Amino acid sequence: MKNEIGQMLVVRASGHLFDQQIRYPVWEATQQQLQYWLADLNIGGVILLGGSVVELAARSRQLQNWAKTPLLIAADIEEGVGQRFPGGTWFPPPMALSAIGDRKTAQQCAAEMGKTTAREALAAGINWLLAPVVDVNNNPDNPVINVRAFGDTPEAVTELATAFITGCQHYPVLTTAKHFPGHGDTATDSHLELPAIAHSEKRLHEVELPPFIGAIAAGVDSVMTAHLRVLAWDKETPATLSYPILTEQLRQKMGFEGLIVTDALVMAGVANYADAEEICLQAIEAGADILLMPANPEKAIAAIENAVKTGRISRDRLRASLHRIRTAKEKISANALARSPQKQDAAIALSFDPSQFAQIRDGATVETILRESMQQGGNLPLQPPQTPHQGINAIVASNLLNNDFLGFHTPAIAIPQQLGYELQLLAPESLQQLLSFSSMTLQLFARGNPFRGSASFTPETKSVLENLLRSDRVTALVLYGSPYIVEWLLPNLNSHIPWVFSYGQMPTAQRLAWEFLLSQKTLSSVRQNAFI
Amino acid sequence: MKNEIGQMLVVRASGHLFDQQIRYPVWEATQQQLQYWLADLNIGGVILLGGSVVELAARSRQLQNWAKTPLLIAADIEEGVGQRFPGGTWFPPPMALSAIGDRKTAQQCAAEMGKTTAREALAAGINWLLAPVVDVNNNPDNPVINVRAFGDTPEAVTELATAFITGCQHYPVLTTAKHFPGHGDTATDSHLELPAIAHSEKRLHEVELPPFIGAIAAGVDSVMTAHLRVLAWDKETPATLSYPILTEQLRQKMGFEGLIVTDALVMAGVANYADAEEICLQAIEAGADILLMPANPEKAIAAIENAVKTGRISRDRLRASLHRIRTAKEKISANALARSPQKQDAAIALSFDPSQFAQIRDGATVETILRESMQQGGNLPLQPPQTPHQGINAIVASNLLNNDFLGFHTPAIAIPQQLGYELQLLAPESLQQLLSFSSMTLQLFARGNPFRGSASFTPETKSVLENLLRSDRVTALVLYGSPYIVEWLLPNLNSHIPWVFSYGQMPTAQRLAWEFLLSQKTLSSVRQNAFI
Repeated sequence: MKNEIGQMLVVRASGHLFDQQIRYPVWEATQQQLQYWLADLNIGGVILLGGSVVELAARSRQLQNWAKTPLLIAADIEEGVGQRFPGGTWFPPPMALSAIGDRKTAQQCAAEMGKTTAREALAAGINWLLAPVVDVNNNPDNPVINVRAFGDTPEAVTELATAFITGCQHYPVLTTAKHFPGHGDTATDSHLELPAIAHSEKRLHEVELPPFIGAIAAGVDSVMTAHLRVLAWDKETPATLSYPILTEQLRQKMGFEGLIVTDALVMAGVANYADAEEICLQAIEAGADILLMPANPEKAIAAIENAVKTGRISRDRLRASLHRIRTAKEKISANALARSPQKQDAAIALSFDPSQFAQIRDGATVETILRESMQQGGNLPLQPPQTPHQGINAIVASNLLNNDFLGFHTPAIAIPQQLGYELQLLAPESLQQLLSFSSMTLQLFARGNPFRGSASFTPETKSVLENLLRSDRVTALVLYGSPYIVEWLLPNLNSHIPWVFSYGQMPTAQRLAWEFLLSQKTLSSVRQNAFI
Repeated sequence: MKNEIGQMLVVRASGHLFDQQIRYPVWEATQQQLQYWLADLNIGGVILLGGSVVELAARSRQLQNWAKTPLLIAADIEEGVGQRFPGGTWFPPPMALSAIGDRKTAQQCAAEMGKTTAREALAAGINWLLAPVVDVNNNPDNPVINVRAFGDTPEAVTELATAFITGCQHYPVLTTAKHFPGHGDTATDSHLELPAIAHSEKRLHEVELPPFIGAIAAGVDSVMTAHLRVLAWDKETPATLSYPILTEQLRQKMGFEGLIVTDALVMAGVANYADAEEICLQAIEAGADILLMPANPEKAIAAIENAVKTGRISRDRLRASLHRIRTAKEKISANALARSPQKQDAAIALSFDPSQFAQIRDGATVETILRESMQQGGNLPLQPPQTPHQGINAIVASNLLNNDFLGFHTPAIAIPQQLGYELQLLAPESLQQLLSFSSMTLQLFARGNPFRGSASFTPETKSVLENLLRSDRVTALVLYGSPYIVEWLLPNLNSHIPWVFSYGQMPTAQRLAWEFLLSQKTLSSVRQNAFI
């Protein structure tokens, strides 16, 4: 059994092949560490971030070759493979789906999104989707879930998340409902501290739990725990470490028999709760089968081993988890792939031949979701500047470095540039600089961001934005990301000013926004990548 | 012969696999175009830009699979594969080598740089290095060559470029001496307009030509033409289209029997000279074997075919070029690879298995070049701010979007961040904002950039910089890139201020600069990627 304990751990690695490309040295393991962990410690899985979809295919193959037991390879691809791995399809955030007027269209899109994500994941070597988010985001100040949720009502989330799961099931991949028992109604970021949910059990059954019940009924393979306290069930302990929550509620009352996986154990919300190895033991005692990103895998294994020896954790408890892990791995094994009805995709997945990826992108569904969820108003069309440098294309984004959505070739920059606008790229903190320009189109890229602890702009930024919008300097406004920010912005905007809100930030969202703002004639003068 | 004309063309494509990733839609062909050109038009080669080294391997395989005749696959990897393709080794600009005090060390580094670049190129499917630059950069205002040259004297350039070529010859790849007959002494960017070199023939023989003569003697495989006029040899016509320059001088007098390749024919310096197809014909008449990036490959082939029919271009002229192309392709064929003494690398190249790339990076030579060419001064060590947010880490870079050297994980940002500095990222145009801060470290990323038409900062930027440096707000200065800018900056700097100049902009250069500035004790408190 000793040699099997490693199977309960999932470690973090970069999706790149080379150590010099590691971006998060605190979290991402080196080649040497990985080889030791996968081959000698018999680690069960890896969660990957970074690298293009083509690199990912190579990386997955490399990691599988090192592993003693075939690996679970996981990624947080809630918005398609392209969200994290350039080259894959990048879908708008799930919340966009609940903004689609026609429910049937929304459900179809959610199913297509699941299907495409699963297909591309498989082809890149990912066999475990850490998606869908089934939290109900009924708190607009939620900094960590926000537009990652499929909506702000339990009905919308259940309907769409279930459709997503059903879509994924076209392919032999694992899906994950997260974050149990619901992370939607908190204004605290569990990456930074431990939130508490004070709702009654009745309210949990009305709002938070239905999407989990729906996901389990639809056959979701795993459930990820939340690093927050749910006072109705356990006044003291975060859900991730709570026997009443994971075992009594999720396993026993809700009858979930799949994998229970913790959220990352290095997140401050749980990591501050006890020492790193103690947290691993408590998570297993609570009912978790898989420990995601334990601080030190080697120490975690030793601690678990010791806990079994001393009788703190029973052998039966461990056997049950190991059995569930084997069952999950059987479902995504090479044999299962070969038996899959999607023979062609299975062949790609097994060959890891990235040059076969050319045809897998699903641009049509992306465009449908973006079009159907876009909001707009004001007097059209926007008139480009008559002489060059007369108009400013002001772009405000909180992450100018290393974002995947902005480049000189993306429509938000490339289209205005060809029309004679002068680019001004700014972080939100530098917004007051815009007050020195007399005429500008303003494009804001803003959504709730984990690790930043806030769902929106700071009060200072909001105040400058208000001044700017009331000063008549803004000739057009485009907001990419947060529906909550657009709700706040619109009352400050003169009603004749053309504006667009898109849930998406990706190049396709930018193209659609500019197609809305400009006349056909102006558009036809612009040259751009026809595949965006 | 008709079907062979395509062999004389090299077209531009993105190094990514997918059309939606195309960044330069005006220049980069789509999948569909490429398949038609390579299979039906029998195009001879492709020049690639974009994508990681792993993607490049997949892309090269894809393109070779489409091609009727095995392709030349070219890239402008003058500073190593990592300069253009993340994951490969990224060397400092060649000019750094001539700044190394010890000539033997410099030569060894140049040879290692060639060897590593050739090895990684081969493994990624690139068989034609559009390097080395053998121009003598004796004009500090040169916006297009600048630090891409191996020095500012003919002796240094000849010695180092020849060592680079010799290093490359460990592997079956093609090398290129460029830009004939010398692009070093011009302040005009041939991407934008057509420069003229007014030197006497005597002076050409003293300065511009020796590196080409050296490269040819060392066995360079191809020579790339310059889009500039050399009045001593041809008063009217750019070198790319000049029979007196390409045939009489390069072929006949200098006896070069390898490939003559034009620089990109879409560059304004030559494209404005005549219509697109006429330029192709004139380049062939002048003596070019290969046309790089003709505006329209299909029309170019038709025009050449017609010129042969009408007798404007003789069949013998075409046969001679096609023979040279076949000879070059034979040298880099699969058979040649298999016969190569570098059996293991040849095997990687033939398998295109990117997971075998793990060991190919040559960090030691990069570090040697950076260390030996770095300049520094002032009173050390730099004291980090005592309280957080007291000090500003001001980073000025002309390309904040889509640059490969800056990220939250790279030392120029990650080290100061951990020491309590607050990051301010700025474009040179926004430099005056720094006047509102009382204390900062200033890091400038600046080198001569093609397409920008200037080797340095604008007069406005220089004036703000002078004010800043004289105001005692700058506690440390780091310049990454241009030795000409540091020459101008230093007289403005108070002599006690610590400063560093590095030719490199890559993460390793940033790490070395900060290792110089900080004390051992401070450094040991900083956590970063140990492989950078």
